[in-house]
Amino acid sequence: MPETNSAELTARLDALENKLWTRSYLMKIAEFDGATIAPENGAAARGEAMAALAGEHHEFLTSNDAVALVSELEQGVAAGEIGDPKLVAQIRTLARDQREALALPTEEVEAWSRLTCEADAVWHKAKVADDWASFEPYIDRIVASLKRQAAYLDDTRDPYDVWLDQYERGMDSAAFDHFFGQVRETVVPLVQAIGERGEQPEAPFLTAHVDDATQRALSFDLMRLVGLNDTDTCLAFTEHPFSEGFSVGDARVATHIYEDNLMSNVYSIIHEAGHAAYELGVDPAYARTCLEGGTSMGIHESQSRFFENTVGRSRAFMTPLLGLLRRHVPEVYNGVTEDELYRAVNIATPSLIRTEADELTYPLHIMIRYEIERLLFSGEATAKDVPGLWADLTRKYLGLEVPNNAMGALQDTHWSGGSFGYFPTYALGSAYDAQYVPAMERDGIDLEGACASGDLAPVRAWLGDKVWRWGRGKDAPEIIEAACGAPFDATFFCDYLAKKFGDLYQL
Amino acid sequence: MPETNSAELTARLDALENKLWTRSYLMKIAEFDGATIAPENGAAARGEAMAALAGEHHEFLTSNDAVALVSELEQGVAAGEIGDPKLVAQIRTLARDQREALALPTEEVEAWSRLTCEADAVWHKAKVADDWASFEPYIDRIVASLKRQAAYLDDTRDPYDVWLDQYERGMDSAAFDHFFGQVRETVVPLVQAIGERGEQPEAPFLTAHVDDATQRALSFDLMRLVGLNDTDTCLAFTEHPFSEGFSVGDARVATHIYEDNLMSNVYSIIHEAGHAAYELGVDPAYARTCLEGGTSMGIHESQSRFFENTVGRSRAFMTPLLGLLRRHVPEVYNGVTEDELYRAVNIATPSLIRTEADELTYPLHIMIRYEIERLLFSGEATAKDVPGLWADLTRKYLGLEVPNNAMGALQDTHWSGGSFGYFPTYALGSAYDAQYVPAMERDGIDLEGACASGDLAPVRAWLGDKVWRWGRGKDAPEIIEAACGAPFDATFFCDYLAKKFGDLYQL
Repeated sequence: MPETNSAELTARLDALENKLWTRSYLMKIAEFDGATIAPENGAAARGEAMAALAGEHHEFLTSNDAVALVSELEQGVAAGEIGDPKLVAQIRTLARDQREALALPTEEVEAWSRLTCEADAVWHKAKVADDWASFEPYIDRIVASLKRQAAYLDDTRDPYDVWLDQYERGMDSAAFDHFFGQVRETVVPLVQAIGERGEQPEAPFLTAHVDDATQRALSFDLMRLVGLNDTDTCLAFTEHPFSEGFSVGDARVATHIYEDNLMSNVYSIIHEAGHAAYELGVDPAYARTCLEGGTSMGIHESQSRFFENTVGRSRAFMTPLLGLLRRHVPEVYNGVTEDELYRAVNIATPSLIRTEADELTYPLHIMIRYEIERLLFSGEATAKDVPGLWADLTRKYLGLEVPNNAMGALQDTHWSGGSFGYFPTYALGSAYDAQYVPAMERDGIDLEGACASGDLAPVRAWLGDKVWRWGRGKDAPEIIEAACGAPFDATFFCDYLAKKFGDLYQL
Repeated sequence: MPETNSAELTARLDALENKLWTRSYLMKIAEFDGATIAPENGAAARGEAMAALAGEHHEFLTSNDAVALVSELEQGVAAGEIGDPKLVAQIRTLARDQREALALPTEEVEAWSRLTCEADAVWHKAKVADDWASFEPYIDRIVASLKRQAAYLDDTRDPYDVWLDQYERGMDSAAFDHFFGQVRETVVPLVQAIGERGEQPEAPFLTAHVDDATQRALSFDLMRLVGLNDTDTCLAFTEHPFSEGFSVGDARVATHIYEDNLMSNVYSIIHEAGHAAYELGVDPAYARTCLEGGTSMGIHESQSRFFENTVGRSRAFMTPLLGLLRRHVPEVYNGVTEDELYRAVNIATPSLIRTEADELTYPLHIMIRYEIERLLFSGEATAKDVPGLWADLTRKYLGLEVPNNAMGALQDTHWSGGSFGYFPTYALGSAYDAQYVPAMERDGIDLEGACASGDLAPVRAWLGDKVWRWGRGKDAPEIIEAACGAPFDATFFCDYLAKKFGDLYQL
């Protein structure tokens, strides 16, 4: 390809990427505003503006000009005329985004948007009223629509596999079946053994009253402790904690404060800080291109949970964490030892609500959802079977009875939004973490020392190099293989849980 | 005009308005985010996104299609084929926006954006370093550019008049000369008399320490007291208080908290709440059109200052205000009487900083700036004369010596941003207020009773009917004449100040 042609192509690519980036960036600002501070009555206007942005994003991405441009760029790569690795990665990612955006007919996209919008509104009311019947028809309609959409995206694959791959490139139901099979074999008997033979610690400090102002001050210090920088991040307060990467140099964390549950705030911040660190660590050269942001749900969750659990719930990290707690809440934490804190933040016990589950029982909650999704997509179950399946699987894996659907199949928002195939990535993230640890140690990082000292810089440097900087430039399997020297293997996760909780409960 | 043609025109108008509105709305979200919570390192990306929005707004407004559309609509109005008052107002406003956007050549707009951006950066440093010399050249360059731009906008008028009219339709330097002449005659001797014969009250409670958490809680209650609704507004915390109307049902207030100056927070909130109430009160039928928002700087300021001064610093309002202060800060305000509070929040005394000035001396600060702007535009002065003029006028009107330029001509950001002709509207807003009061009373509103009871609903209803609902659909002189039954007359303002401060200081 002659120099001038290549320069002209790159200029056109930059112009397209800029237009797409502007829409994505503004969507995030509007979303963040809505989730943190916007008054209720501004929702309609915000919705209009966001719909306009989404429409424009789709238009720019799928215009005839953009299609021709991507095709020329792909030809340049195929002919070996474009070889710059960043550019090659960018073309691969943009081409995939474009193909997927083009695959779905406009009517299908609009119908989907209406369906999930309606389903979400119905779900909100259904959850409050514990009314499965009103929500039930939406599950069947959503699954039917997702099957149709999957056929547009790739009609050679099983529809559920198409969606699993959307959330985590390279994964399919065979891989997840294998993964959850290993988890089931390890975790279910472990949880049972804890219930039968494990002694639960007393930890009254977990419910001590810590007022809003104290929690706010502590929150900002905690952000710094896990390595976030005041110039790159901010902390907002909301109902459901989340994080959002806006741009190079700007990622936001939103937490919640319950005055009788300080730890909920503490671990929400540590978790969301992991997500934010990932977004902030993307190669600045990827700014304002499709390579910005995280590569997959599973890899993203592996970063948040690495901070939350691998670091944040490790014995070593109790030293700096307790130091911080004592500085801000001396009246409660001066009387607590590191061992007591360690036991308290690692209490493992079956519960009904996924978002409140501990590190050990969490994957069981995911397994329940995964198995039900599998059955709905295979046609072996329909929406009317879901409450029964939920009750059976909860009994089988957690040993608990589900008292009502609000605490059962209606508890999560994901299905009402149409996200089937998303849940499994939550468990996968933790499993990736267990495989990072030995790789990190092989690379000479003293993880335990870093946790104990409260200086996580070496850990951040390793994650930055292996995961963060690649943005969307590598798919999940490429990240794992390059970081760990081997493909994903759930054995690390199972061994980690067995060792950690076996020791904690002296089994 | 045949029905179908008119419907087709209106549909095209709606489509254009929607595109323009989306850009304005998103600009506001990005601006608000930047001013309240965004981390420092996100500024570059936000700047890019905002520049893209501004560029798109300009493109849509001035496209050939938009010009043809507005011309057809104007013909429809002229031919009497379009008669709906809302539509007529919308066409008038949009056509003016378009004419003004088209008047300036792109090179001029770009050069202006670069110049003010640079000037603003230089001003920030110059203010900190008290370094007039570094900023001086920008004043001459900005005035020269503004004169060129004024000629593009209307080469039949004096350039300064063009800019005065931009900020306040219908006003020119003759009108402002007359206004400030009256203000000078009343206020300068009054301030002198207070200095010579007035007794200043003791008010140690003004500097009592009130912690951040207490001020936050009080702030939300105060918003409600002045009539803002939680579902339509939110309160953010920032360095420089401001407000911003986002859309129908969504206006934001941002305040600041100084722990040793509660009243700064209190009156910032009341002031900004007035701005927000105006934006929220615009006719919902104007949503997502060019008629949304306030009509002029002066009218906007008249709303904020009506709440801040006419209501908020009235003797009657001390009852609900002191009640609120006592609920939140009993240890300080249980020992303060309504009379003491009234005297304290109305202390009038010359000072150097405009934003900290009291109700009486405030217009003198504006007069200093107005007179200097007049001389710069007439060519009787250049930038190098400004510090000397500032010192002379401050001595003449306020009886004070200016110790340095940081507390003199460098104190405000307006000139560095290119806003000449803006300052006078601040004084005008208060003057409008004094004329609203008798009109309101003629219409049967018991202003004093409303202030004393803390139920401002009747006052809000009057302002809503006469001012708020019209949005940009009426120009300032039309608003004043319809509300007050007469054109603007500064006599009301002068009489009000003479009476209020004469009584307060027993002159």
